[in-house]
Amino acid sequence: MRYAVRVEVRLRDGIADPEGATIERSLPALGFDGVSEVRVGKSIRFVLDADSEESALGEVDDLCRRFLTNPVIEDATISIEAAEVLQ
Amino acid sequence: MRYAVRVEVRLRDGIADPEGATIERSLPALGFDGVSEVRVGKSIRFVLDADSEESALGEVDDLCRRFLTNPVIEDATISIEAAEVLQ
Repeated sequence: MRYAVRVEVRLRDGIADPEGATIERSLPALGFDGVSEVRVGKSIRFVLDADSEESALGEVDDLCRRFLTNPVIEDATISIEAAEVLQ
Repeated sequence: MRYAVRVEVRLRDGIADPEGATIERSLPALGFDGVSEVRVGKSIRFVLDADSEESALGEVDDLCRRFLTNPVIEDATISIEAAEVLQ
């Protein structure tokens, strides 16, 4: 089975986010008010071949811990759905 | 009203994604097979003060076009929900 996976990598609460802070500071000068708590993370999408949704989730979880995130400062949210078969 | 906003910024189809390509190329050597079509984007979260969900959506849409994305090569997906009031 092919699964469409989306991993959202976010900085943990309390970890400084200079990119988000820069965006937040710039917005009022650009005419946007009322924006606060800006946090910038990554969104990684891919297609995974796996036997079942459970094994896909296990593999993605492992992938996140070992490779896609720095677990000391980042947290990952995983969403998986069956991909449309294109063949 | 306070709204929790998430903007996912993705490269448009057909635009080269060197970061995604690097991840995809590295994974087999790290023991992960079956991963393909890796695309890396940004996930921007913030809180927005607005009168209604409609005006929040309009403001975020404008923000995306003018500031958060490069519309030539990037596309944004917006999701908005009412934020919990913390006061």
